[in-house]
Amino acid sequence: MKLILVVRTDLGMGRGKIAAQVAHAAVTATLAGLDRHRADLAAWLREGQPKVVLRVSGAEQLQDVADRARQAGLPVEVICDAGRTQISAGTLTCCAIGPADAERIDPVTGELSLL
Amino acid sequence: MKLILVVRTDLGMGRGKIAAQVAHAAVTATLAGLDRHRADLAAWLREGQPKVVLRVSGAEQLQDVADRARQAGLPVEVICDAGRTQISAGTLTCCAIGPADAERIDPVTGELSLL
Repeated sequence: MKLILVVRTDLGMGRGKIAAQVAHAAVTATLAGLDRHRADLAAWLREGQPKVVLRVSGAEQLQDVADRARQAGLPVEVICDAGRTQISAGTLTCCAIGPADAERIDPVTGELSLL
Repeated sequence: MKLILVVRTDLGMGRGKIAAQVAHAAVTATLAGLDRHRADLAAWLREGQPKVVLRVSGAEQLQDVADRARQAGLPVEVICDAGRTQISAGTLTCCAIGPADAERIDPVTGELSLL
């Protein structure tokens, strides 16, 4: 089991901003899991909640990955920034895919690089 | 309401590793909130789950902040790395303080810098 977090690198976000956005995606995925995918969430938590943080070059690539994950039936949570700091409100910053079996996620995200 | 995430900067973690550790702390704080501090968690989620990522120079300063937060009656979750990548298993990497009212958290973390 793993949770994939995909982050845009074209927004000039600092490492603290990136961490906050990724945390937002992970919390949102956890709450969605409690609501709609309880068995997968429980399995992921039992395994120590493994996370992998990957990067995309912009909004278009992020949307493309999110769309392909949805088509594969994976849980997807897309995060837009609240705009309090650094970037404008409503900017798409990252997404969470999973938690789900690695074998289901890898075909969707396997070609992306680590952040 | 806010959730504070405090990260060590002396471990040489890359931005992806930092993001994963901070996400781990945020997810753990969320689950603890559901279990033990439901009203504060719900208020924080309603406000858009604001997060602030701060830094400390090492394990000693992280433990000190965590101890002071506990003494102030705040929820604290300390994260040790699973040791799969970059750093050794069991290394203390970061902690979550809250979610709680800013007025309760600021006396504990107000002197720390943003990551």
